[in-house]
Amino acid sequence: MVRINENYNKLQASYLFADIARKVEEFQKANPDTDVIKLGIGDVTRPLPARIVKAMHDAVDDMASSEGFHGYGPEQGYAFLREAVAKNDYQDKGCDISADEIFISDGSKCDSGNIQEIFSADAKMAIPDPVYPVYLDTNVMAGRTGEVVDGRYEGIVYLDGNMENGFVPELPTEKVDVIYLCYPNNPTGATATKDQLKTWVDYARENDAVILFDAAYEAFITDDTLPRSIYEIPGAREVAIEFRSFSKTAGFTGTRCAFTVVPKECRAFNAAGEKQMLHPLWNRRHNTKFNGVSYVIQKGAEAVYSPEGKKEVQELIAYYLRNARMIRDTMNEIGLACVGGENSPYIWIETEGSSWDLFDKLLNEAGVVTTPGAGFGKCGEGFIRISAFNDYEKVEEALKRIKKAFQ
Amino acid sequence: MVRINENYNKLQASYLFADIARKVEEFQKANPDTDVIKLGIGDVTRPLPARIVKAMHDAVDDMASSEGFHGYGPEQGYAFLREAVAKNDYQDKGCDISADEIFISDGSKCDSGNIQEIFSADAKMAIPDPVYPVYLDTNVMAGRTGEVVDGRYEGIVYLDGNMENGFVPELPTEKVDVIYLCYPNNPTGATATKDQLKTWVDYARENDAVILFDAAYEAFITDDTLPRSIYEIPGAREVAIEFRSFSKTAGFTGTRCAFTVVPKECRAFNAAGEKQMLHPLWNRRHNTKFNGVSYVIQKGAEAVYSPEGKKEVQELIAYYLRNARMIRDTMNEIGLACVGGENSPYIWIETEGSSWDLFDKLLNEAGVVTTPGAGFGKCGEGFIRISAFNDYEKVEEALKRIKKAFQ
Repeated sequence: MVRINENYNKLQASYLFADIARKVEEFQKANPDTDVIKLGIGDVTRPLPARIVKAMHDAVDDMASSEGFHGYGPEQGYAFLREAVAKNDYQDKGCDISADEIFISDGSKCDSGNIQEIFSADAKMAIPDPVYPVYLDTNVMAGRTGEVVDGRYEGIVYLDGNMENGFVPELPTEKVDVIYLCYPNNPTGATATKDQLKTWVDYARENDAVILFDAAYEAFITDDTLPRSIYEIPGAREVAIEFRSFSKTAGFTGTRCAFTVVPKECRAFNAAGEKQMLHPLWNRRHNTKFNGVSYVIQKGAEAVYSPEGKKEVQELIAYYLRNARMIRDTMNEIGLACVGGENSPYIWIETEGSSWDLFDKLLNEAGVVTTPGAGFGKCGEGFIRISAFNDYEKVEEALKRIKKAFQ
Repeated sequence: MVRINENYNKLQASYLFADIARKVEEFQKANPDTDVIKLGIGDVTRPLPARIVKAMHDAVDDMASSEGFHGYGPEQGYAFLREAVAKNDYQDKGCDISADEIFISDGSKCDSGNIQEIFSADAKMAIPDPVYPVYLDTNVMAGRTGEVVDGRYEGIVYLDGNMENGFVPELPTEKVDVIYLCYPNNPTGATATKDQLKTWVDYARENDAVILFDAAYEAFITDDTLPRSIYEIPGAREVAIEFRSFSKTAGFTGTRCAFTVVPKECRAFNAAGEKQMLHPLWNRRHNTKFNGVSYVIQKGAEAVYSPEGKKEVQELIAYYLRNARMIRDTMNEIGLACVGGENSPYIWIETEGSSWDLFDKLLNEAGVVTTPGAGFGKCGEGFIRISAFNDYEKVEEALKRIKKAFQ
């Protein structure tokens, strides 16, 4: 008798987005004339930069000719893109990362979800709270968790974030094997300093652990003292895997391209306690379960690193950061405590009541949709997330209405 | 101490393609003037059809405008594509499959590799031999196999294919839970009749099993009595998942789009022996570990179903089938027994010696690269695979040389 993977049944059903959708629908029905402004989801809204558009058109033309046609590409990505990434995102910024340590993929969600496969089933996972739900759910699906007690899965070490630690958690008291970190953070918009990341890298080195570092929002860093990559921290090559994405950088959420960095020295251990490198393991996974990113999309991603592409992408980031600053300033004006919004497209706002109280107030009194922090974990309760990913005029209008609601 | 997934160490290293590459390199060095013709790998060579190219250009233009821009799409694919697939590939051909049973993905390799995740760790897997290696390797990585004994993994039920059964294996004597089938077959090019598929569907229904049906080469079927989909067999909706791809149909190997069909009634069982549907499980996996296929690529795939797109795709298939027929005819002329090549782009040729003997002869005496059957499993020994995916003129020249080598 064929049995299902019972771990799927342990997944706690999330009604967050369904509940949001229902509330928005009810509000819209009661207020048909209000233009509801959505600052909830972390999805970009601006068109692809012209240089990227041109590269994609050219690549489509390649595919239309016998000479330019591309069939199966290398699973790990074309050399032209891997080299552009290694040079521009790492080597030019002083990080020792080579092209063959870059694995091009169709998204950081996939990569950060799949990466746990290369670790043992009994690996002790440390996962921040609040958190991007994929880290947790993929470990539940893989069977690394037990029962849910008080809203948390047994078997996971939760790393609590709060206003006191600025959403950069303290080291765990219990020994852990794999640590998920994300800076600039989704959902909180918090950033980590080099010293803070060094604490984690040192921990991983001393405790034979591995850090999974999600740097999908790296492009939003404007403060030059903040690390853009975990590899700016000495010793990180042995203990850290990094995820990056073109989604938020170049507006690729619907275009799909990302990459994962696995340095050649990055190690785990086999049952005998001997070092075993993670690069060949991830390479094997990539070769076996993935067939490369579309040639057309990789050519678009390559254009991100052209001189014009860089300029246009910087303008795009600046556009959203202007929104973020405006949101942050308004929250300060209103007197709501918040983090994020300076080196991040997200602003994480503390409320006096529950997440849903503030969500409801902003929806019902301002026609603005946000995301209740409780949807990102226990520590997210009492917060909401506002996203800067929308058109400037809409953000401006939303903030005008929010200010009025708080008068 | 962070441990690796030790199952990866069980994977048998395959030197097949490395060995082929080395032999080709040596030959080319010794024969610098010979134009080596590659009929080994199953990769298309003809440009994308014009209608698809147009759709992709239009979609790139959409992404360049505020109004047409697409951010995150539905993980399962856009309705426009799911509906086109359901209507054209199923409903119009008498199969009862609806759009919400179609999951658009970036490749059948990914889907047929990932699907095993939704089954229990102790599910008994039946895998054909010879076979597309992904089915086997992904189960090894998931820990469903033991030691390798005599070239085969303990824990797997191998379904032997041979000239006697026409590479359509008999039912297993041991009870199995999940059965991988692929028709038209890669690597053998064999096809299965409706009666043969019915035997398997009946087995799955009677034995509470599930069939994973890989129909990536469906478009090459010209014999109207052959089933194009497992859903042509009564009762298959309850027991079968089907994989399809645009790779070989529309030349998408480097463009990347495919889909998986999970009917709403398709069931497995939980530990209590109660029916549990697979559709919500696969949907959950898709939502958690995948972020949808690029909008531009999905628009290209949609164009496959336009009147012009259909015509162009048919021409593309006919082009490769003409190659296949020509290869088959030549093999018959030479007096080599073979299967495939009639409703498939692959021709599977029996040799008197070993796979590598014939490979070596064709390389050294004709400058033609093929694939030794031994690379696809124990039952592949004594065969080679010739692929029809190349330009007509090259195939013609290759066959001229092969004929000469056999004179």
